[in-house]
Amino acid sequence: MNAVSGGGALGRGAAAGSGATGGRAARTGNAAGAGNLAKAPTRVNISGTAGPASAVQAISSGAARRVLPPRAWVITVSDGCAAGRREDRSGPVVAEMLAAAGFAIAGREFLPDERDRLARRLRELAASADLVVTTGGTGLGPRDVTPEATQDVCDRMAPGLAERMRQAGAAATPMAWLSRGVCGVCGACLILNLPGSPRGAAQSLQAVIGLLPHAVALLRGQTEHA
Amino acid sequence: MNAVSGGGALGRGAAAGSGATGGRAARTGNAAGAGNLAKAPTRVNISGTAGPASAVQAISSGAARRVLPPRAWVITVSDGCAAGRREDRSGPVVAEMLAAAGFAIAGREFLPDERDRLARRLRELAASADLVVTTGGTGLGPRDVTPEATQDVCDRMAPGLAERMRQAGAAATPMAWLSRGVCGVCGACLILNLPGSPRGAAQSLQAVIGLLPHAVALLRGQTEHA
Amino acid sequence: MNAVSGGGALGRGAAAGSGATGGRAARTGNAAGAGNLAKAPTRVNISGTAGPASAVQAISSGAARRVLPPRAWVITVSDGCAAGRREDRSGPVVAEMLAAAGFAIAGREFLPDERDRLARRLRELAASADLVVTTGGTGLGPRDVTPEATQDVCDRMAPGLAERMRQAGAAATPMAWLSRGVCGVCGACLILNLPGSPRGAAQSLQAVIGLLPHAVALLRGQTEHA
Repeated sequence: MNAVSGGGALGRGAAAGSGATGGRAARTGNAAGAGNLAKAPTRVNISGTAGPASAVQAISSGAARRVLPPRAWVITVSDGCAAGRREDRSGPVVAEMLAAAGFAIAGREFLPDERDRLARRLRELAASADLVVTTGGTGLGPRDVTPEATQDVCDRMAPGLAERMRQAGAAATPMAWLSRGVCGVCGACLILNLPGSPRGAAQSLQAVIGLLPHAVALLRGQTEHA
Repeated sequence: MNAVSGGGALGRGAAAGSGATGGRAARTGNAAGAGNLAKAPTRVNISGTAGPASAVQAISSGAARRVLPPRAWVITVSDGCAAGRREDRSGPVVAEMLAAAGFAIAGREFLPDERDRLARRLRELAASADLVVTTGGTGLGPRDVTPEATQDVCDRMAPGLAERMRQAGAAATPMAWLSRGVCGVCGACLILNLPGSPRGAAQSLQAVIGLLPHAVALLRGQTEHA
Repeated sequence: MNAVSGGGALGRGAAAGSGATGGRAARTGNAAGAGNLAKAPTRVNISGTAGPASAVQAISSGAARRVLPPRAWVITVSDGCAAGRREDRSGPVVAEMLAAAGFAIAGREFLPDERDRLARRLRELAASADLVVTTGGTGLGPRDVTPEATQDVCDRMAPGLAERMRQAGAAATPMAWLSRGVCGVCGACLILNLPGSPRGAAQSLQAVIGLLPHAVALLRGQTEHA
């Protein structure tokens, strides 16, 4: 993958290096740079109801003393972006929305539309992130394999999140029904597939972002299990 | 599993013992106790349109002379309930709703959140019941595996029922989108996964209960196949 | 399968023989009979918004010089129709709607509700058609296996199309939630499962027909992949 560094919203503080190497146990006190992203100027005007930011509670990991925000990683799945031929406009939007909702953006990167490579990377990231959000590769094109890679690594699927994202997207354009995105759980990490267009990605994420803090808490086993 | 006996709505008549042993062929004239449940006081106020009870037609099995109501079994999937640490408030609600809709409640029980054990029990029950409804174990928690156990045993899935249940639940709370419940067919038995909360279970079941008599008739092959 | 010939809307021009034998490369200039179907009298009054016909652009295949409309094949999955015991009222409706939307109807046929046979035929047709639409076999009856046969042959699923079809169908009757239809991609061909009733089939198809030209273009890789 191509780690994003320097440019754009990620320039101020989000540490991109620690995601893959640091395991879940090594995360105590490692919330560097989370807040900065939230203050970056929002590039798209995201319509929606009252923002979810206040609903987010920082989450304390079982072994940690310090309270940490949940960690999210953003992958832009795009041959063109991965090859440097195309500007990534969706990844930054997604990262900003997640940061505004209280997530620490652990990193952001590009990957080409290759099923095995994407699946391998999702599995790596799931070992240390609470949330991995992909954008791109969910359509009907011959190279669109993000849902398949996601299913390859998920132990359990969460179909309702994908249903909700398509339903919300369809309010803007019926083309949203063509998105094949899935959502599921790999270990204790939630993986969401968003469409590739900036608008489609933002609308889809907006439709479920208010549910993500609770989802992450459930995945960590922090909510009482009945 | 832990067969429920004595307490609550099931105290008056529902025979819990016959489900696993009696095969489909042995069911003639075995509708003991169905009506009693319908008369038990309803514990939750279930909002909804005109009740489905009148829509239900008793179904005659192929080999039987007597007309029998369809047989339903209710499983509360919950570590806490199975261990006796927690009161089951959802199972009784589900059983009462099904009884009011014309189903004979063949039995009700608790099971812990264990995939293999639940799958084994679902397969057993599917041999004699027309409908098995689970409540619980559909969330994102590490122990929530009811959908996986259900998929393990289903020959054919019925995704529309799960879509409809989430959609209806979301009218009350967006958290309904986090339910991972599935619906499917094991042999000639329909299996539905409801969420674990009493309110979520009731809302989800209410959204599809009017379809269940027709569904059961189709599964029995009683509706003309084109 | 039983190739449909002579009767009904297909009597004027749609060549039924070329579908299975002609491969994708052999399709240049082979759009015989497409327009005729569009002029056949519509048998059902299909309510809906402004027709999608004008939105359809003829598609040029990579190797071809001539501009060709996308090719669709319609399969009525029904024991009764395949045995000649029952009139097929859905297949003609589906074919007429597709023709009116700009598709060339490459052929139409009956198949009994047999999973392996249907899967084999879907795979054959997918080698030369852009779209295969089935009607029937999506219910809960013991013989309803169209979704399973479709999943058997699809490389990638498109769940949003099935979600949208059920949602639209449910506006007319809640029984639409019982349809187990799926949609997916086999090679470069989109496969859609519609319900068996003429009304259900028409409503389901109407709900997504405006998306199909874009879907076909994506499958052919004619839309820029990001």
